[in-house]
Amino acid sequence: MGGHRELVERFIATLEARDWAAWAGLLHPDVVYEIPQSRERIRGRDRYLRFNQEYPGDWHLRTKIVIADKEHGVAWFEWRLSGRLDEGSADEGSADEGSADEGSADGMAFFEFADGLITRVTDFWPEPYEPPAGREHLVERW
Amino acid sequence: MGGHRELVERFIATLEARDWAAWAGLLHPDVVYEIPQSRERIRGRDRYLRFNQEYPGDWHLRTKIVIADKEHGVAWFEWRLSGRLDEGSADEGSADEGSADEGSADGMAFFEFADGLITRVTDFWPEPYEPPAGREHLVERW
Repeated sequence: MGGHRELVERFIATLEARDWAAWAGLLHPDVVYEIPQSRERIRGRDRYLRFNQEYPGDWHLRTKIVIADKEHGVAWFEWRLSGRLDEGSADEGSADEGSADEGSADGMAFFEFADGLITRVTDFWPEPYEPPAGREHLVERW
Repeated sequence: MGGHRELVERFIATLEARDWAAWAGLLHPDVVYEIPQSRERIRGRDRYLRFNQEYPGDWHLRTKIVIADKEHGVAWFEWRLSGRLDEGSADEGSADEGSADEGSADGMAFFEFADGLITRVTDFWPEPYEPPAGREHLVERW
């Protein structure tokens, strides 16, 4: 399934490049985009395109791992907000332990396909959290 | 890569079944388990087994999608804490909008393999959040 794998890789690369024509060309006109964490859904290529064009901030994406088969694909990527550290906390030390990570994190997008196009994208945006107590005897931190 | 796909499916199924012998049998002795959100790492099958055996709560896992190739695999699964709704909030209505979802959510685990065993597991546990303002014209909620 080199085709689907390549489709996912191009999805991330054209989004990072803001190559909107190339990016939209990967999508089925009736593509459905969902963010389960916020229970948000966008229907259709045109709205999904506008969502990304309007998304605020100087965001950047870098693919870490892509896996795909005949039906499904996934991209595990790093996202980064350039300039985020300049907005206030850079010189303040670490008020909370997670602040240094707010400018970049992992995201993942799952894909479905039809006729060589992407028909569904489901995004996840996991956020940092402090570990629950009780497992320090098994765990190391980084 | 039916082998790796099956390995991932069995990983989730044997974990759900608390079939510790079968589950540990899928893992390389030097498996590394990581949770990037909390920056936690567990080295080795024995500690990783103990981590899961000691994990509190009546947790349950249900596989939604598995994708795998020669090098990598992913499981997108639903996790659920049984009894969580009985602990207080069930009869209180929804104090905040997200409370009904706290008992179940999506998780995802990425895998690496060697010699038919799992050598690395990286878990993500995305949590619910409220959508940022400014995209209501494009989005429907559920």
